[in-house]
Amino acid sequence: MHKIEVDAEMDLLEENKRLAEENRKILKEKGVIAINVMGAIGSGKTLLIEKTVEALKDFKVGAILGDVIAKDDYERVARYGVKAMPLNTGKECHLDAHLVHHALEDFDLDGIDVLFIENVGNLICPVDFDLGENYRVVMVSVTEGDDVVGKHPEIFRLADVIIINKVELAEAVEANVDKMVEDARRLNPKAKIIKMDLKKGIGFDEWMEWLTCVLQSQER
Amino acid sequence: MHKIEVDAEMDLLEENKRLAEENRKILKEKGVIAINVMGAIGSGKTLLIEKTVEALKDFKVGAILGDVIAKDDYERVARYGVKAMPLNTGKECHLDAHLVHHALEDFDLDGIDVLFIENVGNLICPVDFDLGENYRVVMVSVTEGDDVVGKHPEIFRLADVIIINKVELAEAVEANVDKMVEDARRLNPKAKIIKMDLKKGIGFDEWMEWLTCVLQSQER
Repeated sequence: MHKIEVDAEMDLLEENKRLAEENRKILKEKGVIAINVMGAIGSGKTLLIEKTVEALKDFKVGAILGDVIAKDDYERVARYGVKAMPLNTGKECHLDAHLVHHALEDFDLDGIDVLFIENVGNLICPVDFDLGENYRVVMVSVTEGDDVVGKHPEIFRLADVIIINKVELAEAVEANVDKMVEDARRLNPKAKIIKMDLKKGIGFDEWMEWLTCVLQSQER
Repeated sequence: MHKIEVDAEMDLLEENKRLAEENRKILKEKGVIAINVMGAIGSGKTLLIEKTVEALKDFKVGAILGDVIAKDDYERVARYGVKAMPLNTGKECHLDAHLVHHALEDFDLDGIDVLFIENVGNLICPVDFDLGENYRVVMVSVTEGDDVVGKHPEIFRLADVIIINKVELAEAVEANVDKMVEDARRLNPKAKIIKMDLKKGIGFDEWMEWLTCVLQSQER
């Protein structure tokens, strides 16, 4: 739009890239696998982390909970007794490598096997900001409408795992889950796609299978 | 974070304010009431506009549908035979006065009584960007979780109408609608708060009452 904005944005993205690589290096040195959990508001990101923390017995978990006001999400995860940290973005609609870099300075990574980084709830802003993570999970729910995947191509293209949550509500909200899966598959033929209903326990095993496999096979 | 960004952001917000006032002037000259419809992804913004277009017999409606990819929302509204226009933001997570200014240049406002401007689906980015509208509607649904209002105070503070949609699904998603209403009331004691289920026809009359009242009483 205006030149100064474009220049500032380029600077910002370059700087983000540099810091993301630094974060990745720090995480690798500590033997930590980091997973950036992205998704719409209320799609189930915090609940996924809660249930995973509870289920992952053989690995030590840490969590950074990002949000405009992260306190509630932080408390939901911290009560499981894992290392967790709230990361407030204030008015920003995404985390960036700079914020995560500062968080990693304060976060004791010793002994942590997997670090979940919950991003701010939307499907647009987080796209351009690599945090230094190893894997990306993008989560949506059928209640957002079955056009939600097709309308946000960029974020689904960069996902390693795409979770379509609340499938048990599909009929009630007249959403076509197959269409959502097809849109996801078309945008990202390589991603693992999981139909899930976290509250009903559907698809969680499949997620845990993927995660355990990643944690066991990863050279750290 | 960095000085250049802060400066660019200040410039951007100042420029937005100026263009918003210009938009407001153009709309006033044409006797058009503009309503900025904000809300989360899949909260029901497009459906609200569709149903309103269908129900508003005594007023001529126009609609600008903003989204990263606005084509689908545009087609959903245009099929009712009203003047409508898609407004793609590309990678931006909100509309701004500049984009709307260009849209108004191309949009034939003659005879239009009320113009709905559907913003991009999230509860963070649109906050700082006045579009030149007369009223602001913020829409969420119970499926986003009953903490969604409390976690996004800024956008609810500036709303004239707060709609809590999909209330019939509250039990299925274990959401406490009263808590959402209380959060909204605490953040914004003046706003009209409507419990709605658009697909079930609940709360729509209340919305139409508010809208008709505004349209009839407005000096244009």
